[in-house]
Amino acid sequence: MSLQDKIQSGDRLALSRLLSLLEDEDPKGLDILSALYSNTGSAHLIGITGSPGTGKSTLVNQLALELRKVHGETLRIAIVAVDPSSPFSGGAILGDRIRMRDLAGDQGIFIRSMASRGTLGGLAKTTPSIVDALDAAGYDVVLIETVGAGQAEVDIASTAHTTIVIDAPGLGDGIQAIKAGILEIADILVVNKSDLQGAEHTLKSLKAALELGYPNRKTRPEQSGEGQGPLWRPPVLPTIATIGDGLAEVVDAISKHRDYLDNSRERASKDAERMRFEIESLLRRRLAQDFLIRQPEGRVEEMLQKVQARELSPYQAVEQLLSEVEK
Amino acid sequence: MSLQDKIQSGDRLALSRLLSLLEDEDPKGLDILSALYSNTGSAHLIGITGSPGTGKSTLVNQLALELRKVHGETLRIAIVAVDPSSPFSGGAILGDRIRMRDLAGDQGIFIRSMASRGTLGGLAKTTPSIVDALDAAGYDVVLIETVGAGQAEVDIASTAHTTIVIDAPGLGDGIQAIKAGILEIADILVVNKSDLQGAEHTLKSLKAALELGYPNRKTRPEQSGEGQGPLWRPPVLPTIATIGDGLAEVVDAISKHRDYLDNSRERASKDAERMRFEIESLLRRRLAQDFLIRQPEGRVEEMLQKVQARELSPYQAVEQLLSEVEK
Repeated sequence: MSLQDKIQSGDRLALSRLLSLLEDEDPKGLDILSALYSNTGSAHLIGITGSPGTGKSTLVNQLALELRKVHGETLRIAIVAVDPSSPFSGGAILGDRIRMRDLAGDQGIFIRSMASRGTLGGLAKTTPSIVDALDAAGYDVVLIETVGAGQAEVDIASTAHTTIVIDAPGLGDGIQAIKAGILEIADILVVNKSDLQGAEHTLKSLKAALELGYPNRKTRPEQSGEGQGPLWRPPVLPTIATIGDGLAEVVDAISKHRDYLDNSRERASKDAERMRFEIESLLRRRLAQDFLIRQPEGRVEEMLQKVQARELSPYQAVEQLLSEVEK
Repeated sequence: MSLQDKIQSGDRLALSRLLSLLEDEDPKGLDILSALYSNTGSAHLIGITGSPGTGKSTLVNQLALELRKVHGETLRIAIVAVDPSSPFSGGAILGDRIRMRDLAGDQGIFIRSMASRGTLGGLAKTTPSIVDALDAAGYDVVLIETVGAGQAEVDIASTAHTTIVIDAPGLGDGIQAIKAGILEIADILVVNKSDLQGAEHTLKSLKAALELGYPNRKTRPEQSGEGQGPLWRPPVLPTIATIGDGLAEVVDAISKHRDYLDNSRERASKDAERMRFEIESLLRRRLAQDFLIRQPEGRVEEMLQKVQARELSPYQAVEQLLSEVEK
């Protein structure tokens, strides 16, 4: 039985193997994914992002459990944790161990922690194909959790169908949220740890910041069509993830957002955006690989040394490398 | 007088014009920068990163003022704020206005706010050339402030000579800092808002996390040479930026770290790393541009539609585009 057949029959080990190939950017992995690609398109992709300290991992766990409580045990959920692994941690760290303990043994939940390769956007590069593979393997919901609230993380989360941004009391006010650029991508805002002091203030300032932003939000390309019905207004929901408080409301908001997507053109435009991103990033990687393979050994290093000696600017070095190939 | 000559004579308006050309990826900008490139190499590049809510902008302002207090008014400082502009904000937002008020009129300080173009790593792409331009224009210190603590921001900050990571009480403990991958890149750790409750705990947990990480930190390639003298041990410093408290100690730590870099091979290896990153990213962009220009009109859109219809996987679409060009 081929890896592809095994994955289609629900073999978790075979799926893990495919995901490793994809993480390693092994062409074999991409071939298998291509063969499975016609099976994609039914999973609901939920991106979850927020700063460290918001209790994001706990919330993702509770969300998975709540989704299965509401939609039944037949609902299969995959969790992709995009987690820059630190040389400090040397592998799985506390949060992941706790997660494993809570969800281990639940055959309906599949967890994949992705390690950063330390390169810019390294995580973002392979995440789309990982998500495609989980979609093709038949998972109904894919939760994509990103650590941090940086540009790369925001981009990963915003290519999902539904994006949840998590905040917590004491992490800065509405202005900070605007600065971090997280409000504009949120379909659902969650204020976790809502039993802490200042929760009321955080809820209010996020609501105020959203009100402030509405005129602009309308201009988002995927929402600018004519006469498509009402806009989606992101709800701001309090939770206490440690005791499961407020999770039912989050699951309800996800269902409503899913209905909204189905009744507007937004699902198709989000899918197109994600695919365009995936095609462009694959293309860029392949072009760079092909180019570097064709370089004479040591040529790039030689250019780097000239730049270090300030004989050439980085731009001149690149132009020179390119002109040599054209000849 | 050419733009290049004007920049060399200290014309701030001409410099601003060059930076705009570079932000727009205008080849004219890159040509001017190439002509100025031999003047680069004397600026000390300081990356400053941390989560929203840490009071980072205030600290950067105070740091600029303190650096000039200590090193004299002849010290010229440039501040690059890498700040994802939100459709919500519609331009400069509160924080920047306050900054402008504090530092406006000081001819020794030059401020540049960079706007995100909304693309993955969009900020990271042009930041290196902006920093080169400021270096070439004769600024002694370039402060590169990134908002957020994501992968892209961390990468921007870590290509600086000295990287300062800012934390604040209540933003999560040491484990969170490890998760965010920020500890391993910090040369100096600052706990701002150290008058708030929990500051002592934050200081202690960061110190403990650093201790924990030391065996790994030694293996960082730029520090692994034989017999290079002592390792740099990142200090953890409390500050209250709003009243300037603790800033003298931060400036002192920066001086010490600069001495350390001068006495080890680390400055050269950091410079090489930054240049390699710049060359690779320019190369990738140019290759993709050249490729797309050579595509027949609408060909990429056609492929995208096939992927949307699940007739092709993104990988197959890319392979097909590439094979057509090779013919």
